[in-house]
Amino acid sequence: MKKRRRELRGHVKRKKLHCIILFNLTMNPDPNFFYLTGYAGYGCLVLLKDRELLFVPKMEFERARKTVKGIRVKVYRKNLWKSLRRYSRGRAIGIDFNAVTLTFLKILRKEFRRKTFVDISSVIRGLRSVKTANEIRILKKACRISDTILKKLFSGFRKLRTEKDVADFLESEARKNSCELAFQPIVASGPGAAEPHHTPKRKRLRKGFCVIDFGVKYKGYCSDTTRTVYIGKPSRKEREIYTLVLNAQKDVVGSLRPGQKCSDVYSRMIKNLGRYSRKFTHGLGHGVGVEIHELPDLKPKSNSILREGMVLTVEPGVYFDNKFGIRIEDTVLISKKPLVLTGVTKSLKML
Amino acid sequence: MKKRRRELRGHVKRKKLHCIILFNLTMNPDPNFFYLTGYAGYGCLVLLKDRELLFVPKMEFERARKTVKGIRVKVYRKNLWKSLRRYSRGRAIGIDFNAVTLTFLKILRKEFRRKTFVDISSVIRGLRSVKTANEIRILKKACRISDTILKKLFSGFRKLRTEKDVADFLESEARKNSCELAFQPIVASGPGAAEPHHTPKRKRLRKGFCVIDFGVKYKGYCSDTTRTVYIGKPSRKEREIYTLVLNAQKDVVGSLRPGQKCSDVYSRMIKNLGRYSRKFTHGLGHGVGVEIHELPDLKPKSNSILREGMVLTVEPGVYFDNKFGIRIEDTVLISKKPLVLTGVTKSLKML
Repeated sequence: MKKRRRELRGHVKRKKLHCIILFNLTMNPDPNFFYLTGYAGYGCLVLLKDRELLFVPKMEFERARKTVKGIRVKVYRKNLWKSLRRYSRGRAIGIDFNAVTLTFLKILRKEFRRKTFVDISSVIRGLRSVKTANEIRILKKACRISDTILKKLFSGFRKLRTEKDVADFLESEARKNSCELAFQPIVASGPGAAEPHHTPKRKRLRKGFCVIDFGVKYKGYCSDTTRTVYIGKPSRKEREIYTLVLNAQKDVVGSLRPGQKCSDVYSRMIKNLGRYSRKFTHGLGHGVGVEIHELPDLKPKSNSILREGMVLTVEPGVYFDNKFGIRIEDTVLISKKPLVLTGVTKSLKML
Repeated sequence: MKKRRRELRGHVKRKKLHCIILFNLTMNPDPNFFYLTGYAGYGCLVLLKDRELLFVPKMEFERARKTVKGIRVKVYRKNLWKSLRRYSRGRAIGIDFNAVTLTFLKILRKEFRRKTFVDISSVIRGLRSVKTANEIRILKKACRISDTILKKLFSGFRKLRTEKDVADFLESEARKNSCELAFQPIVASGPGAAEPHHTPKRKRLRKGFCVIDFGVKYKGYCSDTTRTVYIGKPSRKEREIYTLVLNAQKDVVGSLRPGQKCSDVYSRMIKNLGRYSRKFTHGLGHGVGVEIHELPDLKPKSNSILREGMVLTVEPGVYFDNKFGIRIEDTVLISKKPLVLTGVTKSLKML
């Protein structure tokens, strides 16, 4: 966190900005704000060349002071803008165009007359895509926790009756492990598995493939795993298609190297899936971190290049409308050799 | 929903817009999009004078078709923008400035050349602040569910050891009742209660006031209740301050009428709290609906006027740094006479 703030302050200097200001003033917390401060409450982070300040409302002071390390925390009384103007005397202010709405821009323009706003979103997105040693440690733990939960799920699977029961089990186990959900779990059985973003239903689990897409948020960082199990006994054809997707996934995961183009990774998957690639209707994967979807994007038109320290998912899937679906997903750390962080077995489980 | 969409289409006509487009293309769902469609997946809603269209990616088609009523659902294949341009031939397009970031504006400008974008955020915020009969029905149910959960909490309170245990109990009960949490519950005991947004800790509940702020989300709609209980036996002074806050709250709730200025409601509370008003450090209340914070805002500088059908919270609190805190909050429906939707007793419970 401190390291990343220092890098951003370097950017302030290089780009001749006066400062960077990040705002966290609404109920939708800005992930960049949490990423840089470890604090998710209301406030504004000001990064100057040589200093870092966090302004918070009085009612958040105690919480901020206890959470934030290495930044001076100040209370803004009546007028946040007055406080901010005191620390932003130069002309150019860096802001995050991804987090500033047009409504908020109107306010900024009114409060900071004659200033220019410079977009620093891609700088932060870039920083975030490559994880620090500490972030990797937390992400590994998040993945280990979700592994444990999924193993427990599979061993007691027969006791659960509906898709919703499975989702509830996952949520309750996440909580027992001091985690939140990274996203609402997807549990899709029978023909429902043909919808990549199926909402778990209160209906009895159907026979056939059952896609379970689940991740926890541990200390603010997300894991992401999908396993497809089979309820009942698969036909030879179903087994064949599962094996094809599995081998395609394993091959691409094993081939990941720093320096590769994300678009090439995607192409390799399309080639692997062969004639089933028409049934693959979404992106191949995405970075994970403080958000469940970060850079890089494994998409056909992505410009990103894999770098050591990136943590991302590889999740091919094939979907046969109104019939069935299969998706297999791991969270992977890019290193000299790729390291799969999610360790639950991928061989087809019959439950 | 349908009624609100029709009203918005009326706005398209009146303001000489060609259409209104609402986008739900990121992981942070746009509440207005859900409000108008009942669907929370990826997509774009296009409201023309005489038609309503919902564009969704292929992988969301089944989900959208099953959820959305009365709107034509279309799949956009490769190019969303091409589909949208076909339905937006006029010059002016209404968009929601609250939901469009500066990054997204760049994309819009590139994809819709020579168009003007007109802000329709305040129109939707206004519509949302006054609830339809159906919304009121759902909000009442949400409040009833949270009542039941809080009663159950208090009757078994002694079995819970830490603030986190209380928060977990609330979350697990919400889930059992087919609800999500409207927000992470606040459970603040001892000196922690002096922080309005205290995060529940894994430490034994402390003696003294314990503030519990909790709400469920039922069918997409939020409830919001705060009760302050006492662990142990309160001193006479503590009892006095509690009674003062309680009477202040009851008085203001009872005085709410359509036509009142929100700023006047706030002033009345300040007067009621007398010399303790210095210890009241936040807004007095906010609308609730598909979001936990909506219009109107009960704040000193609010321009809003109370209208029949608004549903809002009234939540005075007093906070004594490092000592204790008290907050009492109900969700109230504005009608000829105010109707309190959250019914858990407010007389000081000793647990």
